[in-house]
Amino acid sequence: MRLALDLSASARLLSQPNPSVGCVILSPDGECVGRGHTQAPGGPHAEIMALRDAAAHGHSVAHATAYVTLEPCSHQGRTGPCCDALIAAGVRKVVASLTDPNPLVSGQGFERLRAAGIEVEVGLGAEEARELNIGFLSRMIRKTPWVRLKVASSLDGKTALPDGTSQWITSEAARADGHAWRARAGAVLTGVGTVLEDDPRLDVRLAETHRQPPLVVIDSRLQTPPAARIFEPARPVWIYAAVPDSAAQAALEARGAEVRYLPDPRGKVDLAAVLRDLAAREINELHVEAGHKLNGSLIREGLVDELLLYMAPKLIGDGLGIASQPHAAGPLTRLDQALPLQFKSCETIGPDLRIIARVAGRDRF
Amino acid sequence: MRLALDLSASARLLSQPNPSVGCVILSPDGECVGRGHTQAPGGPHAEIMALRDAAAHGHSVAHATAYVTLEPCSHQGRTGPCCDALIAAGVRKVVASLTDPNPLVSGQGFERLRAAGIEVEVGLGAEEARELNIGFLSRMIRKTPWVRLKVASSLDGKTALPDGTSQWITSEAARADGHAWRARAGAVLTGVGTVLEDDPRLDVRLAETHRQPPLVVIDSRLQTPPAARIFEPARPVWIYAAVPDSAAQAALEARGAEVRYLPDPRGKVDLAAVLRDLAAREINELHVEAGHKLNGSLIREGLVDELLLYMAPKLIGDGLGIASQPHAAGPLTRLDQALPLQFKSCETIGPDLRIIARVAGRDRF
Repeated sequence: MRLALDLSASARLLSQPNPSVGCVILSPDGECVGRGHTQAPGGPHAEIMALRDAAAHGHSVAHATAYVTLEPCSHQGRTGPCCDALIAAGVRKVVASLTDPNPLVSGQGFERLRAAGIEVEVGLGAEEARELNIGFLSRMIRKTPWVRLKVASSLDGKTALPDGTSQWITSEAARADGHAWRARAGAVLTGVGTVLEDDPRLDVRLAETHRQPPLVVIDSRLQTPPAARIFEPARPVWIYAAVPDSAAQAALEARGAEVRYLPDPRGKVDLAAVLRDLAAREINELHVEAGHKLNGSLIREGLVDELLLYMAPKLIGDGLGIASQPHAAGPLTRLDQALPLQFKSCETIGPDLRIIARVAGRDRF
Repeated sequence: MRLALDLSASARLLSQPNPSVGCVILSPDGECVGRGHTQAPGGPHAEIMALRDAAAHGHSVAHATAYVTLEPCSHQGRTGPCCDALIAAGVRKVVASLTDPNPLVSGQGFERLRAAGIEVEVGLGAEEARELNIGFLSRMIRKTPWVRLKVASSLDGKTALPDGTSQWITSEAARADGHAWRARAGAVLTGVGTVLEDDPRLDVRLAETHRQPPLVVIDSRLQTPPAARIFEPARPVWIYAAVPDSAAQAALEARGAEVRYLPDPRGKVDLAAVLRDLAAREINELHVEAGHKLNGSLIREGLVDELLLYMAPKLIGDGLGIASQPHAAGPLTRLDQALPLQFKSCETIGPDLRIIARVAGRDRF
């Protein structure tokens, strides 16, 4: 299962929006006879790849055990059902990490295998398999993407000088690492404030990628300039607005953007509705790079799952924070009102620290 | 030398205000025949302990090599000169990590050894030996202690709520770790603001110690209440003031405090003068636990060497920062004006992170 999980991790960028799955087939005497991982959408799943791998090497899989990081599919999707292929190949046992949360599969794959006399065991490596596909699981179960907020701050928690200057607080190495996280995301989200202040491209330049993730802009009153640099990379740009403005919309559509109106009762963009819409667009992981105001709104509304914080070895003093007004009730009066997080990791990236902190309990779904 | 450095580390709490030194003696055929480390002040130095260890085990040290983490002393201090003991014992070679910065020794120990025909090699393990005695070296070379600022903050850099509430941002585990750092310090320093707001004891309770370090209070106008809890532990309390007040002074002296006036031209305590005075009192490492105002003053005046930051997995939003106005020039207008630090380590302590960040260049003395 260790190898199957590694195969799953290696397919992470390739498989989106499908889950990344790894499969390893062991012969009855414990020899690895086939291995595979999910291919790009429309391509074969991990189980098919592993069966083909065995066949290509002339290995028999009769009475073999298949280790797979997710329940084998039972439905005819972009590819044929993996269950049928495993049954036809004559495997004796399937060990799977997770039940597929996709309502088209969930439990039916295991049922079909058992009905064919195959022994099924579920749970080995479940936690790691879950982490590897947390975005897919979130979209399937919660109907929203896994939301990761990327922030670059000083050691004293400042993301910009009092005048808004924020380029660059962290190092080139940290920025390159940030691009790798952009690359693995289903989409990158920002606010019109960042577009107007920094005019960033927000594409993947400092890390390898086979495609540029779509860019999402929260822009209530369609203030994004059609000349903004976000339109330079070849990728979809999805602008969510609240106040219709057909002239501005036409100008942005002429630049290739797609505009959707999702207003809340206060005339702002309904951020929770945006997340549901992005899940409907098959976005598993959403990478947010925005200013302290939009960060604060997202946190305040309980929409953030994880913080990806690059912390520079600097003291700034007065300046802008990570997220303004992150609490719906306003400034805190008791420490137990603070938003509880859980540190997942802390690593050195060049001269900076990269801290991953999860909003406590957000991964229990 | 590895073993000698470990012996040095083990003597760190014991040896103050002397440097902690380790010594290992290898026979000509490479066998370890003696080992020792500095004892409490007045007790034998590492070399003497290692020679005694060899004698106690009936080992000859004739033609042996002594590995020692600091230059053997040449002067008659609280104990006899170690050089003479090494010469008398007949060792052939001395390998030392560092030259002793103490003007009573500096280089003279090596000279005396060489004059006696002993081969001397200097530099092995120098960096680690230096780190192990950074406070002693600072006091000898800069004539000020090594100043370590301990702060507990949230992930967004807040040390207290807007109303000043700060107990407890971090966990019991982080507080216990903080007590271990208090224990290794020569003295603990705070401000009268912290005494008035939190009424802390600021002693070592959650870690093992053989003594309570002296407490230093910065209190310009002698506002420390004689009933404050800082007077409960048995230890020296040194109060530095700026504005003479004989009644307040008498009341504090009645509680066992010693009051010294070190005013600056603005009628505040001259913090740089306090550090010089503490060095004269043989304080090697100064552990600061104060509020954001005193922290800001110390940083602004360039007196802080290292930050010891416990970071809790929480978002607070509005609140007080790590250090107010840390820059002499006021709020920054360019990012390159930020105080540059260097991360030394980042570790998990219970649910919190412990980050050690050194003010860049402060350890080059």
